[in-house]
Amino acid sequence: MSAELKELIFETQAKFKADPDEAKAVFRSESALQQGMQSRVTLGDHEIVVDEPESLGGANTGPNPVELILAALGSCQEITYRAYATALDIPLESVSVTLEGNIDLRGFFGVDDSVRPGYQGIKGTVRINSSADEATLQMLRTAVNAHCPVLDILAKPVPVELDLSIEQTAAAAAE
Amino acid sequence: MSAELKELIFETQAKFKADPDEAKAVFRSESALQQGMQSRVTLGDHEIVVDEPESLGGANTGPNPVELILAALGSCQEITYRAYATALDIPLESVSVTLEGNIDLRGFFGVDDSVRPGYQGIKGTVRINSSADEATLQMLRTAVNAHCPVLDILAKPVPVELDLSIEQTAAAAAE
Repeated sequence: MSAELKELIFETQAKFKADPDEAKAVFRSESALQQGMQSRVTLGDHEIVVDEPESLGGANTGPNPVELILAALGSCQEITYRAYATALDIPLESVSVTLEGNIDLRGFFGVDDSVRPGYQGIKGTVRINSSADEATLQMLRTAVNAHCPVLDILAKPVPVELDLSIEQTAAAAAE
Repeated sequence: MSAELKELIFETQAKFKADPDEAKAVFRSESALQQGMQSRVTLGDHEIVVDEPESLGGANTGPNPVELILAALGSCQEITYRAYATALDIPLESVSVTLEGNIDLRGFFGVDDSVRPGYQGIKGTVRINSSADEATLQMLRTAVNAHCPVLDILAKPVPVELDLSIEQTAAAAAE
């Protein structure tokens, strides 16, 4: 497994060096709001259900959107540790991540427009088991944090363009 | 449902105005890498499986971390449309979102350190069905985009602090 992954990484790097256009990837999502605050999201072959806890008006049928941000960061760190440890021949028995994100909900609820609606900060711990020495693992950490896509997405603004497409419907009789 | 949600929103706003400390929320995740690139993530009562597609060294048992970023944005837009339409008494029959995120994988693979590992940009369309007039719906859009937590997380840097905790294990006999 590890030897195969290492070969895949080196082959992919060589391919991208030879033809940078090969490295251009597009990821897609389709989602639709259901009853209440529930959203069903399709991502490639996979579907996930997103919802809010009852305290925020949902039915708690799935994690909420800001929890998914933490899931993205934790799993991205882990996968990037696996990839760079494999490429650099650093032993890595296990990697796990705990995260806490702090939000001031006055932002989302429009109570104070000087309060940002998103996370004010995220803190956490990456735990690894390894037989490598401390200096090697600190070097691995530097390589991971320089190349982890979700850490980069949080650290630097991502330009987002959202069009609005309106389909007018007849007003309901009761309105 | 809609009347209950409206009442919840107004009560919550009043509570946060009266005591801003009540608005401080913490969200948490715990995750651990499994075989290959698979990660299992616990978010409150919910668990999701994250993985990479086979082309990126995974077994495609779940969405990948950057796809979760799109899921977070799409569902957060939808939930914020529902909340603000309800609070502002704007009819909203349905809301759905399609998104595309562009990544240059030379960043993640360390082929060119001038290329960011995360999304270079995200574009998409929010589709709504409503009997409200165009001007009202554009006002709704402005309110949503000013208060959507995940849109804010993407637009402005989020400070992230990750500690590394190392557990040294004995080197395997084969190494």
